[in-house]
Amino acid sequence: MAMNRSPSRSDAWNGMERMRMTTAMGESSSIHSEKLLSLARSLSELGLDNGTPPVSSKQPAVEPSIELGKGAFFADGQRKVDYILCYHYKKRRSSQQRLSCTSVASNGSIPVNNVLRRDTQPELETGIPEGEESRLSEEEKAVMREEFEFGLMEQGLQLERDKESKSQGIGFIRLHVPWTTLSREAELQKIKVPIKKSYELRQPQGIMGKVASLYQTLIKPLRPDVPETLNTQSHQNRTKTLSYPFSRDKLHLFEIKSQDTLFDYSVRSRIVKEILMRTACTQTCQATGISSLLSTGVYNSAFPLHDGSFTRKGGRGQRNDRQLLYEEWANYGVMFKYQPLDLIRKYFGEAIGLYFAWMGVYTRMLVPPSVLGLAVFIYGILTVDTNVPSQETCNDSLNFTMCPLCDAVCDYWKLSSVCSLTRASYLFDNGATTLFAIFMSLWAAFFLEHWKRRQMCLKHAWDLISLEDEEDRVQDIPRPEYDAILQEKRSSKKRGEKRKTELDGVGDGVGDGVGDGEGEEGEKDTMLSEREPDSLTLEDQLPGYMINVSVVLMMMGVTFSAVFGVILYRITMLSIWSMDPDPKAKSSVRMTVTTTAIIINLLVVLILDEIYGAIAVWLTELEIPKTEVEFEERLILKSFLLKSMNTFAPVFYVAFFKGRFAGPPGDYVYLFGHFRMEECAPPGCLIELCIQLSMIMLGKQLIQNNVFEIVIPKLKKMYRAYKEQDKGKEDDEDEAETKRPKQQWQKDFSLDPFEGLSPEYMEMIIQYGFVTIFVASFPLAPLFALLNNVIEIRLDAAKFTTEIRRPDAMRRKDIGIWFNLLSGISKFSVITNAFVISFTSDFIPRTLYQYMYSPTGSMEGFTEHSLSYFNVSNFQPGSSPSPTLFTEVKICRYKDYRDPPWSIQPYSFSKEYWSVMAARLAFVIFFQNLAMFLSMLVAWLIPDIPRSLREQIRKENMLLMEFLLQDEQEALSSKPPNHSPIRQHTHLQHSHIDMCQILH
Amino acid sequence: MAMNRSPSRSDAWNGMERMRMTTAMGESSSIHSEKLLSLARSLSELGLDNGTPPVSSKQPAVEPSIELGKGAFFADGQRKVDYILCYHYKKRRSSQQRLSCTSVASNGSIPVNNVLRRDTQPELETGIPEGEESRLSEEEKAVMREEFEFGLMEQGLQLERDKESKSQGIGFIRLHVPWTTLSREAELQKIKVPIKKSYELRQPQGIMGKVASLYQTLIKPLRPDVPETLNTQSHQNRTKTLSYPFSRDKLHLFEIKSQDTLFDYSVRSRIVKEILMRTACTQTCQATGISSLLSTGVYNSAFPLHDGSFTRKGGRGQRNDRQLLYEEWANYGVMFKYQPLDLIRKYFGEAIGLYFAWMGVYTRMLVPPSVLGLAVFIYGILTVDTNVPSQETCNDSLNFTMCPLCDAVCDYWKLSSVCSLTRASYLFDNGATTLFAIFMSLWAAFFLEHWKRRQMCLKHAWDLISLEDEEDRVQDIPRPEYDAILQEKRSSKKRGEKRKTELDGVGDGVGDGVGDGEGEEGEKDTMLSEREPDSLTLEDQLPGYMINVSVVLMMMGVTFSAVFGVILYRITMLSIWSMDPDPKAKSSVRMTVTTTAIIINLLVVLILDEIYGAIAVWLTELEIPKTEVEFEERLILKSFLLKSMNTFAPVFYVAFFKGRFAGPPGDYVYLFGHFRMEECAPPGCLIELCIQLSMIMLGKQLIQNNVFEIVIPKLKKMYRAYKEQDKGKEDDEDEAETKRPKQQWQKDFSLDPFEGLSPEYMEMIIQYGFVTIFVASFPLAPLFALLNNVIEIRLDAAKFTTEIRRPDAMRRKDIGIWFNLLSGISKFSVITNAFVISFTSDFIPRTLYQYMYSPTGSMEGFTEHSLSYFNVSNFQPGSSPSPTLFTEVKICRYKDYRDPPWSIQPYSFSKEYWSVMAARLAFVIFFQNLAMFLSMLVAWLIPDIPRSLREQIRKENMLLMEFLLQDEQEALSSKPPNHSPIRQHTHLQHSHIDMCQILH
Repeated sequence: MAMNRSPSRSDAWNGMERMRMTTAMGESSSIHSEKLLSLARSLSELGLDNGTPPVSSKQPAVEPSIELGKGAFFADGQRKVDYILCYHYKKRRSSQQRLSCTSVASNGSIPVNNVLRRDTQPELETGIPEGEESRLSEEEKAVMREEFEFGLMEQGLQLERDKESKSQGIGFIRLHVPWTTLSREAELQKIKVPIKKSYELRQPQGIMGKVASLYQTLIKPLRPDVPETLNTQSHQNRTKTLSYPFSRDKLHLFEIKSQDTLFDYSVRSRIVKEILMRTACTQTCQATGISSLLSTGVYNSAFPLHDGSFTRKGGRGQRNDRQLLYEEWANYGVMFKYQPLDLIRKYFGEAIGLYFAWMGVYTRMLVPPSVLGLAVFIYGILTVDTNVPSQETCNDSLNFTMCPLCDAVCDYWKLSSVCSLTRASYLFDNGATTLFAIFMSLWAAFFLEHWKRRQMCLKHAWDLISLEDEEDRVQDIPRPEYDAILQEKRSSKKRGEKRKTELDGVGDGVGDGVGDGEGEEGEKDTMLSEREPDSLTLEDQLPGYMINVSVVLMMMGVTFSAVFGVILYRITMLSIWSMDPDPKAKSSVRMTVTTTAIIINLLVVLILDEIYGAIAVWLTELEIPKTEVEFEERLILKSFLLKSMNTFAPVFYVAFFKGRFAGPPGDYVYLFGHFRMEECAPPGCLIELCIQLSMIMLGKQLIQNNVFEIVIPKLKKMYRAYKEQDKGKEDDEDEAETKRPKQQWQKDFSLDPFEGLSPEYMEMIIQYGFVTIFVASFPLAPLFALLNNVIEIRLDAAKFTTEIRRPDAMRRKDIGIWFNLLSGISKFSVITNAFVISFTSDFIPRTLYQYMYSPTGSMEGFTEHSLSYFNVSNFQPGSSPSPTLFTEVKICRYKDYRDPPWSIQPYSFSKEYWSVMAARLAFVIFFQNLAMFLSMLVAWLIPDIPRSLREQIRKENMLLMEFLLQDEQEALSSKPPNHSPIRQHTHLQHSHIDMCQILH
Repeated sequence: MAMNRSPSRSDAWNGMERMRMTTAMGESSSIHSEKLLSLARSLSELGLDNGTPPVSSKQPAVEPSIELGKGAFFADGQRKVDYILCYHYKKRRSSQQRLSCTSVASNGSIPVNNVLRRDTQPELETGIPEGEESRLSEEEKAVMREEFEFGLMEQGLQLERDKESKSQGIGFIRLHVPWTTLSREAELQKIKVPIKKSYELRQPQGIMGKVASLYQTLIKPLRPDVPETLNTQSHQNRTKTLSYPFSRDKLHLFEIKSQDTLFDYSVRSRIVKEILMRTACTQTCQATGISSLLSTGVYNSAFPLHDGSFTRKGGRGQRNDRQLLYEEWANYGVMFKYQPLDLIRKYFGEAIGLYFAWMGVYTRMLVPPSVLGLAVFIYGILTVDTNVPSQETCNDSLNFTMCPLCDAVCDYWKLSSVCSLTRASYLFDNGATTLFAIFMSLWAAFFLEHWKRRQMCLKHAWDLISLEDEEDRVQDIPRPEYDAILQEKRSSKKRGEKRKTELDGVGDGVGDGVGDGEGEEGEKDTMLSEREPDSLTLEDQLPGYMINVSVVLMMMGVTFSAVFGVILYRITMLSIWSMDPDPKAKSSVRMTVTTTAIIINLLVVLILDEIYGAIAVWLTELEIPKTEVEFEERLILKSFLLKSMNTFAPVFYVAFFKGRFAGPPGDYVYLFGHFRMEECAPPGCLIELCIQLSMIMLGKQLIQNNVFEIVIPKLKKMYRAYKEQDKGKEDDEDEAETKRPKQQWQKDFSLDPFEGLSPEYMEMIIQYGFVTIFVASFPLAPLFALLNNVIEIRLDAAKFTTEIRRPDAMRRKDIGIWFNLLSGISKFSVITNAFVISFTSDFIPRTLYQYMYSPTGSMEGFTEHSLSYFNVSNFQPGSSPSPTLFTEVKICRYKDYRDPPWSIQPYSFSKEYWSVMAARLAFVIFFQNLAMFLSMLVAWLIPDIPRSLREQIRKENMLLMEFLLQDEQEALSSKPPNHSPIRQHTHLQHSHIDMCQILH
């Protein structure tokens, strides 16, 4: 019936594949692993045939010449290299030489060549210190490698290696995943593959359709210049092929042009990685997966290969993907074009694709707030001359005599002397700022929603929608560090229970439950008491948690003391420099101190940032998280906590605490007895906050971008080249080899390894903090962020394409914890902005004055109203200015709402103070709830999945169902032995504009 | 190789199934439908062989006797009845009689019998008015039924029907889904089926394990008494069988005991429903799916069958599921036991299972706040005697003379006269209330998190985790109303474009794109201009939206005017009754008016509730939503908006507006010129709020529960029984039949249809609003809710088991929009509680007085401080009390913070007013942000998926992968033609407590 056609096909496939497998591996798969291993071991003990493992000798003779085939293929020029494993080797020429080698290795001094090579490999690749690595002798490592590689072949991978020609060096093992294995794994992992059914999506007719196509035409110059197939969003009537989880029984359904190209790079490398992760090496080393072997130094590194060189030799010619990326993405010339996301995803995998997609969305979303922020600033410039409070401040005839800003040495001063600062303050603190802050809350909500939609579109285009289960499984593999500690715990438990040593073999390891059931009844009680711990308990991890909490608290303390230190610096410097009798110096004291303090602040922030990064890693190691994912998540949370606190603590101080505890004249608050608490500059704290913010934000971006991302890598490279040269002179015998053109894997090996996306995301998240949290005081922040990001994207792109090894293609269905951090920051920013507007800026007192106290309904008289009176006779002894130019001053003014000296309770808070306070608080409530409500409304009104996409998914499901049912019925009715449905094509018409084409 | 074993098995299955199919359906499947239909039509036109459709005549002869087989099976006693279709029929004995029948039908009068029967079917089952139904003649309907039933058979369903023995009546078609169809659909829908691999989960050892098992033992008496297999949570070491999406090619992997029992009720009924939904009837009626046919009256109803009677005849014996449910669930005797959720899910499907699971979680979660709320209340009772403000109020010697509460007729009064009310007020407004309100915010967050976890456990236990895609597909089918309007739009378009009539046949319908591609090139431009609309555009739906918005706004207006009406009632009644010279009547006026006003309020709320429910349905119909899901969602949102506003508007008025606009003495605010705005009762608005809340909450619950859910159904039943009797007398010829024991489908037909879960959820959501939104003013609300819900669960259970037809088993992966509403209410409640505590209660003034103004630091003197002075000479003419008992009063007091008459600005807000206001606002900010932060912390700290479950899912995935890989390898190495893996069993040990066993 229906069923007997697929097998006949798959039989054919299998037959073919088996042939291929046999030629590749010989009879190795039928030999049992243990036998082979013991053979290998005995061989190596005899000192015979060492170096080349027995399996590879059965492969078709591998030519040592490098000219054979292209770098991306096996020696036969057919099979693609899907993955590379590297290891250090030392050839054991005779047992004597071997002994000496071993003695060298065991005393910990590693040969020169080795040290040099290691230099190009940063520490974190292996994750353990040098000393530990040398615990295993070279022979042990070789045996482990043999077992592991045998395991890989048993799992269905094909291996190729070079002869170990030199006495020691780097060995490369090249892995290829053949069709049999690939199809098996693809079926198990339910990887979706295109079927013989495609449809074409037409834009809706009518006005909306015309607008959409006009839009498409308009943004055409912005599209990157990559082949159409790699840019699903470029053409108007997209043809999409339906996909269905791969199944070898239903090969006839799928659109298979060639077995080599059906699964692209990311699927292949993911499958190899998965096999590498689950292959165990139980005989020689109790370890599962390549990551354990990497961490013990058995292997040096493991990575997939780049697609050849990123530069084209000479003129035109077909560009490979890496060249495409280099020219159409990692290039300042295409700075204003969209990124070729589908190509990035194809080349680097979904996780990195999502990062750049997010960067793109974020950067583009920064355009409106940049423009508006600039507009607010320009509005300030244009209206500053008509602003009554600053006019009043600058008006000399109003003659406000202000109380001195420090004890004794400072004199009374005229309010008009701070005229320019007041005018500058107005640029950032005008009516438009409030509206801009509300806009930014909405913008944040809109940005998050927009990203969700964009992510959904990408998930659909990249077939990530039904990912959930798989991801969990892949990520389950415990970290080698966790395994090691678990192993230790087990063995210590074993040692403690010597009386039952004979049972120790039972239940060794987590996953060996299969076939465990037979002896169950008899051994039940022993098993219950004896079962080995298969995970660490809370007690094992408790010390780590304790250290964590205390260190994090300590680091918070460090941050706060850093802030406090800068405050002390300012206070002491001010009081010291103010004693300078030169009036000119005196006038510039405040500015000088503020500026130097901010620079100190910036340096402290930058230094602590690096320290905190290291501490966060160390702390997370101590926690012994089980899986890589858990590790990453905790690391991110911790370093986010530390770094954001570090960055924002000084800003928070200026915004909400500075000058609030200074006390009224005559009752000043003193620090350590004689340092008067600092006050804000006369026109309010907002302008100081603004300066602080802009300096830290700009400084951080400039220094981190330029120094850390350009200069340091350049220096590293130069150092490496210099060492290379050095080595070239020293190492005469290898000269011939270094002269030969390098193979692709050798080139890639010399690149830096991929270190994860966390640092990139972290930088952006902190920047997002600057853009949102204090935007009310610094409306230009989005503009600075925008300028930075346009460059940052291309900088990162260049790094990914040219400077690091190709990363494993990771699948992620979203940007994970970063989204939560973004949304947390957005929520937090609503509150901070509410407080900045109502407490830091003068918006509320001004508004209240205008509508409640002003006799004329205008702002006239506001300055008078906002200054309280102080009777100079009430100064505490020693704090009144001793040599004063203002001799007849009886009353001085200060900025506060307090009762005048002649009231019943002099200098207590006035009724105005309380009403202003109530208004400020009411505004906070109003602003916070309004912004939160609007954000929620935005989030609710904008569906997470664009309507057109939802519709499309539904239609796709319908078409798929139809196709499958039709296939069923054909099979039932006609049952040809090898029927294969013809390619089908359908037209669908959108009833909504296709948002996925428009969202970016 | 590996592939040739499964097909040989599936070949066998298929062969077997084909045989069976052939016996069941004869050659019908090879006859083309159109031929058959035309045959049928010609037959019925000749007046021959009508009634019994040709296909059923080919079935094994169906005995008309009812004794044959059990009610749940076909006549052969083998095939299970999976679904029932009902229709009205009229037998066409001769053409003459037929004509008369038709004429009866066409003038709209339906025969008596028909009318009576319809009475038991509420309107919404068919969704269209009576008049429309009669548009189709009986013959047309019969032909449509024939085509539709033929379509069903083509899709692979098997049908059985009784002979239409009477001249007219209800015909029943029984549907059975055979294995071939079942397995095909199960594979397409990727339904998970147990495989031959199970594992046993052991509790972790150590103290935690002991605690867990102790807990298990303790709650054992609370477990419902149902078979172990139906209660996955009852045993400590659970054996769980892994499951994998069903595939006919891999039958050997699955644990198939019998083809009849592999798929349970819910899968079977879902598959039948799906086929019913997608089977089209294109020839005779342009309609797809049973719902269109139901709405046009071609069928009367469609439902799955109950599992026999819910009462057991006599003693013991094996109970069927319905009896189990009736005895162990729908019974007040088991009120304090957990619900048998797995059984509910098995019997009613996942959607209803989730509802009752949610109800259970909610009810149990109400226990802690009930206890605490009671504790707060008791704390109030215990400390009321030590409370200084109420002592001061009751202290006659302090002698506060208060200003009159109404103009002229009211006299001055002593504060001590409201002593008891003040003491009562303290019971609900003491320090503990604030803490309780914060607790409730946390509780709400915790409840939502807990539910997420519980839901996740259920999703895992019920295999709902990978549901996403499927659900979307099933729910895509457009509503018949939508289809009808679309059809109309199309035909009107056709009429307008007569010149191209010959092209009208192309592209008819949404999903017929298959095979559309051939003529593509030539017809492209015509198709582009000619393509028919496949969905309604915004313009079609705009009028609906407009009406919606305006009606909703109008309804809001109605609600507000109702509230306003009650206010007017209170004001006028007060001023009228106050004129009563009898001082006794005068003193009780306030209480009487308040009570009557609240009762009126309650009645208005209840009546408007019903009206709004109907209006919401009507409005949603007008919107023409496309799918059932969309319809439901919009309906829920609308009715939630209207109903919650209706319920809470009067409460909001009392809480935040009453008495705030009354103005100070001498400057009272008047409504309509002479009604003075009402003030709160002297001890503050909180006690009034409290009374209002408790009355509305209790009244609503008691009346809705008792009257709407018990009395009205009872009355309906009685009426039906009465009519039934009536009919029995009338309808003599049917007497023989009615005397015969009814078949199961006849019994089920006489039950009420299932009307969806929305009303049940809505009731609970509104209740949740009472529990959270104003909990600060009425801490007993959780207790009342708890008591109500314990009964409500069993009431609903009884309804579902005994009073309604078995609902379609719907799969839902969560409770959908209701969760969003719950979380919205929770967020909203934080704000309302903050405002209630700071503005409605006296908490802030009291606290502020104690810590800021009190000379002794105690509460002494608070009453004096909180009352302002009024000089009676400042009364406006006519508003001072004319016949007064207090003759020497110069100064009266009123509750407000205003400057005394002797200050500079008499009667303006005092400094205390502003500082209290600032404190109130600060408290709102503090409370809101604290509660929000804590809620977020709770949500963040409690992972959505319990750790043990996540671990278990991972392990399951690992075991599954292992099992599948092992199967692969066995197939590769041994390749027996029919290998089937032996049943495997594994032990897993939890390293964490299994939270899914503990969460309920």
